Amino acid sequence: MPLENIPIVTVSAGAAVGPAPLDGLSGNAPVLLREIAEHVNRLLATGESSAIDLNALPLTPADLDWLQETLGTGEIAITLESDGDSTLNETACPGVWWVTHHNEHGAVVSRFLEVAFVPELVKAHPEDIKIGLEHLDLLISGLS
Amino acid sequence: MPLENIPIVTVSAGAAVGPAPLDGLSGNAPVLLREIAEHVNRLLATGESSAIDLNALPLTPADLDWLQETLGTGEIAITLESDGDSTLNETACPGVWWVTHHNEHGAVVSRFLEVAFVPELVKAHPEDIKIGLEHLDLLISGLS
Repeated sequence: MPLENIPIVTVSAGAAVGPAPLDGLSGNAPVLLREIAEHVNRLLATGESSAIDLNALPLTPADLDWLQETLGTGEIAITLESDGDSTLNETACPGVWWVTHHNEHGAVVSRFLEVAFVPELVKAHPEDIKIGLEHLDLLISGLS
Repeated sequence: MPLENIPIVTVSAGAAVGPAPLDGLSGNAPVLLREIAEHVNRLLATGESSAIDLNALPLTPADLDWLQETLGTGEIAITLESDGDSTLNETACPGVWWVTHHNEHGAVVSRFLEVAFVPELVKAHPEDIKIGLEHLDLLISGLS
């Protein structure tokens, strides 16, 4: 199932009032942390995956750094090479994945927090497996 | 589910008779290719994952090179950092993953071909997710 097919939730994080403080934190990142905990609870209760579009939220670069540091780094790092590279890194909270998509020039085009047992993009699709199997069968028949 | 819990099949590859040819190929790798195709067929038909223990087979280093080259390289590369690193790389045949486990000194301790939609080791376990959620809840309560 492509990423587009799983529910992407944009969180109303309640934009901070007034100018951003000197450290660049808007105050929205801790709100998001609560939202993530709710998503993880839902994953455990129902198995439902979800993704939070970080670029659709009023988060400063400092917020993103704080969030990434607070969620920590897990054991699993995944790279997916397509038209542009994607990285799907487990955070220190299992089931919460920090997903970054780049374009062919290496620029970040989107950032998600995916809450799932496994990121959707990592799963092999039956249609692709079938095509690969046909290729494998051709290889094998060429060997005999 | 840990890797140990999925069926690991050791293939009777029919050891080649006589001395190995100069190129170091034993003749067993093409047999294995047929076995892999059967596993992929089973995955598509029943959803059943499996793993082939490459170190338990009479394969020469040249066989392993031939096999790796023949299966090709897919889009997804996964690293798992634990006591020793593991790499779980998609081959050009989707659903067939080349899995290598290293010890803490970086030496290869086991090699598998895993046939699955997703390698088992990549999936977050509910028990680990629960522990991570407790940690997240503690973090959140410390913020308020």
